[in-house]
Amino acid sequence: MIVILKRDPQQEQLDSLMHWLQDKGVTIHTSVGAQNTILGLVGDTSKLDTDLISALDIVESVKRVQEPYKNANRKFHPEDTIVPVGNTQIGGGNLTIMAGPCSVESEEQVVSIAKAVKASGATMLRGGAFKPRTSPYSFQGLGAEGLEYLKAAKQETGLPIVTELMDASQLPLFKDVDVIQIGARNMQNFDLLKAVGHQDKPVMIKRGMAATYEEWLMSAEYVMAGGNENVILCERGMRTFETYTRNTLDLAAIPVLRKLTHLPIIVDPSHATGKSELVDPLSCGAVATGCDGLLIEVHNDPAHALCDGPQSLRPEVFDTLAKKLLEIHQLMGKFGG
Amino acid sequence: MIVILKRDPQQEQLDSLMHWLQDKGVTIHTSVGAQNTILGLVGDTSKLDTDLISALDIVESVKRVQEPYKNANRKFHPEDTIVPVGNTQIGGGNLTIMAGPCSVESEEQVVSIAKAVKASGATMLRGGAFKPRTSPYSFQGLGAEGLEYLKAAKQETGLPIVTELMDASQLPLFKDVDVIQIGARNMQNFDLLKAVGHQDKPVMIKRGMAATYEEWLMSAEYVMAGGNENVILCERGMRTFETYTRNTLDLAAIPVLRKLTHLPIIVDPSHATGKSELVDPLSCGAVATGCDGLLIEVHNDPAHALCDGPQSLRPEVFDTLAKKLLEIHQLMGKFGG
Amino acid sequence: MIVILKRDPQQEQLDSLMHWLQDKGVTIHTSVGAQNTILGLVGDTSKLDTDLISALDIVESVKRVQEPYKNANRKFHPEDTIVPVGNTQIGGGNLTIMAGPCSVESEEQVVSIAKAVKASGATMLRGGAFKPRTSPYSFQGLGAEGLEYLKAAKQETGLPIVTELMDASQLPLFKDVDVIQIGARNMQNFDLLKAVGHQDKPVMIKRGMAATYEEWLMSAEYVMAGGNENVILCERGMRTFETYTRNTLDLAAIPVLRKLTHLPIIVDPSHATGKSELVDPLSCGAVATGCDGLLIEVHNDPAHALCDGPQSLRPEVFDTLAKKLLEIHQLMGKFGG
Amino acid sequence: MIVILKRDPQQEQLDSLMHWLQDKGVTIHTSVGAQNTILGLVGDTSKLDTDLISALDIVESVKRVQEPYKNANRKFHPEDTIVPVGNTQIGGGNLTIMAGPCSVESEEQVVSIAKAVKASGATMLRGGAFKPRTSPYSFQGLGAEGLEYLKAAKQETGLPIVTELMDASQLPLFKDVDVIQIGARNMQNFDLLKAVGHQDKPVMIKRGMAATYEEWLMSAEYVMAGGNENVILCERGMRTFETYTRNTLDLAAIPVLRKLTHLPIIVDPSHATGKSELVDPLSCGAVATGCDGLLIEVHNDPAHALCDGPQSLRPEVFDTLAKKLLEIHQLMGKFGG
Repeated sequence: MIVILKRDPQQEQLDSLMHWLQDKGVTIHTSVGAQNTILGLVGDTSKLDTDLISALDIVESVKRVQEPYKNANRKFHPEDTIVPVGNTQIGGGNLTIMAGPCSVESEEQVVSIAKAVKASGATMLRGGAFKPRTSPYSFQGLGAEGLEYLKAAKQETGLPIVTELMDASQLPLFKDVDVIQIGARNMQNFDLLKAVGHQDKPVMIKRGMAATYEEWLMSAEYVMAGGNENVILCERGMRTFETYTRNTLDLAAIPVLRKLTHLPIIVDPSHATGKSELVDPLSCGAVATGCDGLLIEVHNDPAHALCDGPQSLRPEVFDTLAKKLLEIHQLMGKFGG
Repeated sequence: MIVILKRDPQQEQLDSLMHWLQDKGVTIHTSVGAQNTILGLVGDTSKLDTDLISALDIVESVKRVQEPYKNANRKFHPEDTIVPVGNTQIGGGNLTIMAGPCSVESEEQVVSIAKAVKASGATMLRGGAFKPRTSPYSFQGLGAEGLEYLKAAKQETGLPIVTELMDASQLPLFKDVDVIQIGARNMQNFDLLKAVGHQDKPVMIKRGMAATYEEWLMSAEYVMAGGNENVILCERGMRTFETYTRNTLDLAAIPVLRKLTHLPIIVDPSHATGKSELVDPLSCGAVATGCDGLLIEVHNDPAHALCDGPQSLRPEVFDTLAKKLLEIHQLMGKFGG
Repeated sequence: MIVILKRDPQQEQLDSLMHWLQDKGVTIHTSVGAQNTILGLVGDTSKLDTDLISALDIVESVKRVQEPYKNANRKFHPEDTIVPVGNTQIGGGNLTIMAGPCSVESEEQVVSIAKAVKASGATMLRGGAFKPRTSPYSFQGLGAEGLEYLKAAKQETGLPIVTELMDASQLPLFKDVDVIQIGARNMQNFDLLKAVGHQDKPVMIKRGMAATYEEWLMSAEYVMAGGNENVILCERGMRTFETYTRNTLDLAAIPVLRKLTHLPIIVDPSHATGKSELVDPLSCGAVATGCDGLLIEVHNDPAHALCDGPQSLRPEVFDTLAKKLLEIHQLMGKFGG
Repeated sequence: MIVILKRDPQQEQLDSLMHWLQDKGVTIHTSVGAQNTILGLVGDTSKLDTDLISALDIVESVKRVQEPYKNANRKFHPEDTIVPVGNTQIGGGNLTIMAGPCSVESEEQVVSIAKAVKASGATMLRGGAFKPRTSPYSFQGLGAEGLEYLKAAKQETGLPIVTELMDASQLPLFKDVDVIQIGARNMQNFDLLKAVGHQDKPVMIKRGMAATYEEWLMSAEYVMAGGNENVILCERGMRTFETYTRNTLDLAAIPVLRKLTHLPIIVDPSHATGKSELVDPLSCGAVATGCDGLLIEVHNDPAHALCDGPQSLRPEVFDTLAKKLLEIHQLMGKFGG
């Protein structure tokens, strides 16, 4: 960490800062310039609060040299994390395709979609039982009943399940769930992150609508700090000024996260854009950019889906797409990327 | 609601849409143009899902004419809501000044700040016991112990308390709290919103970093739909491309919300900017723009605050500011604004 | 266009609006609801000013049904535009690779890079002679001299040239240039757009940092309205809250524009991200998403480039990338996409 | 400037960097830590290209300690700049009120508005003759004829004129203009900035829709580097995700710029919000926050304005507002702010 002091700092305040920093166990290198004095702090600075130091009268600014995340940091864990889920693995060169309806509506619906997407090449089943909806008057999901239908579909097809947890109190219902999804709106619900950090199912964290890469990784760090190493990151679009698409899908997140972290990276083009006609081209783009998998909405009757219909694909459209994705993934693998 | 159909819609699909809409209890006015047919839907459209309708093959786009919120909507509740809190009232021409430390650190600290801000004119005490922190390694607040210290300060000074609730499971500890704060990161934690909607303490909802006015009002609607009418809105800055300030304070929110809703509007310049030197000018600006109150961080020793130090004012600086704010508020009142 | 009136409009104002609209040559369909009256305007509404109509006392809101652009609109021009440039074509299923240095520095530099990128498969040479720099103290480009060096490289290699025009007064110097680039900062420099619309070289318009798709297409419309149909669009990243990358590359722009317009779409991953290590994965992603070409910075000595060094590839890295891009493009072509 | 090196830099590359930096005339302080070596550069670093240095293989990151602007920097020019315009002054504790129509439409219109706003307390007349319009089909302003009408209004009322210049070729027509406005869309039209830097009329630079404070100040620096010290900054809203208002007015810009620069700061609430009902509260807020003046649209018949009608005030509404603003300004002056 680097601390840039204001010109001519008061000696008493400077001494006080130096002692405080030394108490925290860091070593200080001082470099005196014509305009500014610069302190280089060496040691474990991850627990130093940059805001606090910036607040001091004598400090001009503070810059971290090291990332504030450790468990999620590739520097301290160079090998890719591979998350085992049922008979499949997320990461490690596999292409995971999670497909299914936005909302679980009935056992028939979810079982039939599960069969269809499995036949097309999907490796996991997604579906919402607890639904975060902007309006209190919108359908909030079937809840526990929906989880039962997902379980039935899993038994029929063998596909592992990923579904969203909205509150820690629902955890006991998630016994048969394979991957717990933390939604974008809860990415910084820290009590929920702690709760899933203290249990052992894999956790997929969707990026918050206005979350930086670092904040997103810090949310992964919350889960990992609790002892759960099986964290998956899911890019699902950022909120920007462009409103033609629901959000702006940030595919640069793939190579950026690949460098910063060892955790697997999934892309959700359905929610990101909110338009089903964009799912095919952006799924192809995401695979060529190097993601570990996709989260795709598939519905047997998009026009009558109880929620999020506009972004769902029909099974036959998904089938064509899934085949393309596998070919692109194979080609990219050939390049060694 | 207006539904714009694509050119030459298939008759069968059109009939199916018309029946579905009529089943929902809305009346349909059809207007056939050269390029497009337009359906005007009349009646209670707040439960129609625009996303769902947009998904239909024959639909080009959908536009709401009415707002999706009802309880929070000024159209259905023209008078300003006044929230009674202890011996004070939020809204109705009063200027509420909530002041106090970011984090509660000790009984001495919070009592001495409470006394100081009361003497300067503050009408409520703020202070964090449960703290949402980006890093799992940062200080997470004193929790239940912090609430005890706030209670002690309330007993000493008579100032009502506002403090943040992060998880519904903490509610039993909030017996002596006067206003429950929902933080920006939890603005769309819908289970938490439902929980505070089912109890009767006033709730102050901070705007999410990337929340539109409508989404923010829909979060208020969640609380009100549960039966709790005492909701207060708090503007605390939006995330934008400008990083010089922590967030961009949006003072236009004041007159915009004044028009859209009857709920009181508080402004938090401390968290919005993250810089104590900006608190004075923006507090003055917020009062002149017409807010119902301010949430201001005050600390007896900003440089040693355990969190968020850079945005805290010293009590003597707050004292000067509070006096200015009262004069500006008085002048604005004279204008009838 | 749809005009939603406020409840109980004053009859006199309504009559005045109706007459004014009829004078503009549009036909009006009126639909009276319980809460609102809706006017459906049919005919050529592209010259109606929505802001003006919104300003009327009796109007609640206005919504365009038709896009405000005509020449650039795929609805009125369903076939893809193919722009002939030298012995190559942009659009129509070709993959155009524009490569070269950010700034032209010397004849040796640009000739040697031109030879290298041609050998790797580039179809056009890019290079800046007039450089838009944030600081007046930064190198502003070699200007006319730089154009001479580009011309020399074109003569040596046969590669057509694309380079940026910053002011209409420089046009006479652009005689040997093949495609005129309008930079992101000048996307709404309307006098410059008019100037390039009145000459006949193809024009590539980079997206402004905060430009919506519609604004971008309206800038294309400025050029086309002047009589120049050979317009190319170049996505180069949007300004968002994320600062890890210089801008956020928006690959959804590719399928969105493909639907809205018939103009070719180029992607510039170098400027968008500002980081050379992201150019390879995002170029692959852009081709798989379906762009018509790429604009890639290549430099023989990135560390000593006079500007924008961090985003440049070395020729040998570009060579590997170009080969991958051709394979991905071939695979995508096989899918018929 | 601080340069953070990657771990274990190659000695040869390090030597080469050190020599290159010394050649640029800066002194280097080296601080070797366990993880990183840090170089502190002392001297005139405003001409060093941070992008270039970041590009080096051995460099992890670069941080500027000093601002890249000099002429506009308060550090090197502590006193407020006061810009004399006709018989009035911008800055220095004065409240400048620039009022008038968005577009000049006729001599009668502009003269009558000029008289009205002068009577209400305006100190300058604004009005657009050359209009930057998103659509090539919208009214583009009266041009030279409009400037004549503004001149007539100036002669009638004595109010100095501020109006927008869109292209350097129009400069000869601006003889009677008092302040040249550079619009938001041209904030980084560097050729235009250079042109107005080489003439001696004061220049008011509107903030670009996606411009950071630093970029905005660098545009001022372009003008000042040409020799023209009379630069005024005008905040007119940023583009954000919120679309209820046209842009998000950033009043924090006032105290932030006050600290960073000595140049006067004007606020334009009309264009920022695009809604006339927000102009009154935000103008009051801007004055209380400490701006040097306002730019307000006033129209004698807002509903029929040829452009930007929705944000215009009627003269009688402006009259009430102007009186409020003077009282608020007086009160703020009493506080010494």
